[in-house]
Amino acid sequence: MTADVDAVTAANQELYASFEVADLDRMDAVWDTTDDVQCVHPGWPLLTGRAQVMRSWSVLMANTSYIQFFLTDVNTSVHGDVAIVTCQENILTGIEDPDAGLAGGQTVVTTNVFRRRHDRWRLWMHHASPVIAASGDASE
Amino acid sequence: MTADVDAVTAANQELYASFEVADLDRMDAVWDTTDDVQCVHPGWPLLTGRAQVMRSWSVLMANTSYIQFFLTDVNTSVHGDVAIVTCQENILTGIEDPDAGLAGGQTVVTTNVFRRRHDRWRLWMHHASPVIAASGDASE
Repeated sequence: MTADVDAVTAANQELYASFEVADLDRMDAVWDTTDDVQCVHPGWPLLTGRAQVMRSWSVLMANTSYIQFFLTDVNTSVHGDVAIVTCQENILTGIEDPDAGLAGGQTVVTTNVFRRRHDRWRLWMHHASPVIAASGDASE
Repeated sequence: MTADVDAVTAANQELYASFEVADLDRMDAVWDTTDDVQCVHPGWPLLTGRAQVMRSWSVLMANTSYIQFFLTDVNTSVHGDVAIVTCQENILTGIEDPDAGLAGGQTVVTTNVFRRRHDRWRLWMHHASPVIAASGDASE
């Protein structure tokens, strides 16, 4: 079980590492090879299928001059051949406010669902969303 | 497999039905009984554990005079004893703009991860996020 958690946590880190170095091949290898993969970027609608999901990462990488993730509250929960990793993405990026340099941060909460097939954990679902309200928002 | 999809889809519908009628007991029965449940409401940070998650629903119900969900793009994908349901929540609510009556809608994209234990599918993770940009947002 500890080995599973370690393997899933490593797969989760690889997701962010591949984006930081803008390596689409590494990002591709993070994701499951089946076509039922799904992805939600912060504020985006749902993307489904490998083609749509990988194209979105390609666009994000092309439009990101610099990005660095500091993950906090990383929690991994394994149930059989499926694992959920939740984490808070604390993001340093060169995009949003060029005047602010790398200080223009943003906080995102993310659910990454990994699936084990052929002894390898791969990403099945990535759902990231902006943290807007601390709490108390009354609408679902 | 079709039976699994039907059972999971029914469990997913029960999540929304329980919120619409503001029945906390029904909502409680939707969720898994273990303490590793997790929940993200739109714009909120991550909530973890049964106590925190159920308290949030209690607060949402108490602050919602009227809510109705029209689910679209409901997709259920089963892998062993875990299933992911994604859907778009098209929401009619009486909260946000009283002058607008029930017309003040909001679109939310949601990932619900269900887990089967003792032959019953229960909710393990609910992650809902506001759809802000159509696409092309360059930050993750």
